[in-house]
Amino acid sequence: MSAESLADAVKRIAGEVEQAIDALLPIPEGPESRLFEAMRYATLGGGKRMRGFLVIQTAGLFGVDRNCAARVAASVEMLHAYSLVHDDLPAMDDDDLRRGKPSAHKQFDEATAILAGDALQTRAFEVLAEPATHSNPEARAELVVALAHAAGARGMCGGQMIDMLAEGQQLTADEVGRLQAMKTGRLIQYSVEAGAILGRAPLHQRHLLAAYGRDVGAAFQIADDLLDVEGSAAELGKTAGKDAEQGKATMVAVLGVERARAQAEHLATQAAAHLDSFGEGADHLRRLAAFMVTRRN
Amino acid sequence: MSAESLADAVKRIAGEVEQAIDALLPIPEGPESRLFEAMRYATLGGGKRMRGFLVIQTAGLFGVDRNCAARVAASVEMLHAYSLVHDDLPAMDDDDLRRGKPSAHKQFDEATAILAGDALQTRAFEVLAEPATHSNPEARAELVVALAHAAGARGMCGGQMIDMLAEGQQLTADEVGRLQAMKTGRLIQYSVEAGAILGRAPLHQRHLLAAYGRDVGAAFQIADDLLDVEGSAAELGKTAGKDAEQGKATMVAVLGVERARAQAEHLATQAAAHLDSFGEGADHLRRLAAFMVTRRN
Repeated sequence: MSAESLADAVKRIAGEVEQAIDALLPIPEGPESRLFEAMRYATLGGGKRMRGFLVIQTAGLFGVDRNCAARVAASVEMLHAYSLVHDDLPAMDDDDLRRGKPSAHKQFDEATAILAGDALQTRAFEVLAEPATHSNPEARAELVVALAHAAGARGMCGGQMIDMLAEGQQLTADEVGRLQAMKTGRLIQYSVEAGAILGRAPLHQRHLLAAYGRDVGAAFQIADDLLDVEGSAAELGKTAGKDAEQGKATMVAVLGVERARAQAEHLATQAAAHLDSFGEGADHLRRLAAFMVTRRN
Repeated sequence: MSAESLADAVKRIAGEVEQAIDALLPIPEGPESRLFEAMRYATLGGGKRMRGFLVIQTAGLFGVDRNCAARVAASVEMLHAYSLVHDDLPAMDDDDLRRGKPSAHKQFDEATAILAGDALQTRAFEVLAEPATHSNPEARAELVVALAHAAGARGMCGGQMIDMLAEGQQLTADEVGRLQAMKTGRLIQYSVEAGAILGRAPLHQRHLLAAYGRDVGAAFQIADDLLDVEGSAAELGKTAGKDAEQGKATMVAVLGVERARAQAEHLATQAAAHLDSFGEGADHLRRLAAFMVTRRN
């Protein structure tokens, strides 16, 4: 096992991702600078950068250039940040607090938040397709397709739509699983696959990593829902207890706390098993799977 | 000169683009179908498809495969539709009418409209990067970068930000020109450049076509602003007179009707001049430039 702890690696990589985002969003002259300030506010200065961490750790398995991996990590964090900005809007989840700070529409205004989210999505795709991300344009085009697949109407956006329609409805565990796979799972799975795409990994390794990403993503979401029930706003940096209050469809609501926790443990074990054929380089990915079950924020 | 009139060509190509969009947005099983219905509502069944027309006409100069050009035309129309859906939101321009129908947030609801716009943007990039769009991945990556440049914070989104900040302010003609180039001009220019990218056009031809696109885009916006002053809701399919009511920065507001019209005529002539070295294949592009000055809807 590598000597660095998971917590140290997460912290180190979060710093790298932060720097990459900062460099990719320079503020221009002119009145449009307000839009860039909102984009930076929504993207910089917070979070464990789990998606970026997955990109960089997976890319590391294949010896991918560090700067290239950091660009792709920054891109997925920008995409994730856009989704949070729009989810927090009054017409959506109406959340005033995000990562312990006012949500973008509270800090700026609704119109600026909508535009900042829009422009963050655009920038996420732009960064992937730019030559600096990979010398092989096939890899860049594959990254764009993979991110779009994860983020679009059959992925994240579709999941958010189902989530809103499901409020106050009684869903089955299968329906909740599908909803959460779309809403959050696909983007986490993409983050792992993106590292494999950058590394031009052979197909069987791409499949194994995708399976790891799928299971880790599902475990992550259950852990998140458990935290919403058990955590405090101070630990979470966002409003706690909102899921139950809004009648959100979660595994915890459907299965109860104990069975949901058992499900997360099962998924975490299964996730790590997909990595059996990878060497020590995958240790942090294994530790991350285990962490999903014990996380407290 | 080719025998087909501009009006006939626009109608024929609008039909092709409509078909391509329809094929690219099939409705899936499951509750996320509502999101696809909103995406289709916002994108299908309306408009002259000017951006798609520019893609297809320019691609035609280089003998690009018709299906490939139609995909890129559909993509830019999806991007354009997303921007209209978000611009019409209550927090933005608050417009209830679009192409003679209720705006997406009136037909569905605000949350669905936000998500439909988001997912349309995603799909626009996905279509560009998919192998079916071009056999050369370099071309696909270039299209993604070019569209992102036109649509993002330094283009369309930035222009919309400036437009909102400028409401009720007194801008100079230069400032209005920059705002409108960002807000609408860049996407029109991109549409022309996309045809050249698809056709792997040599650099000097790309520059000429980009210059044509820039001038046509600027002429188009002035013509649009003139229509807002002089047109009726029935002709426009949207609420007339909103610009003045909202204190929007337009060339008409800054220069007055007569000087704005003269400016549009100058731009249209200049646009056509960039096409001098192109043959009869560019006739519809020349006619389109002239039409900018006479358009009534």
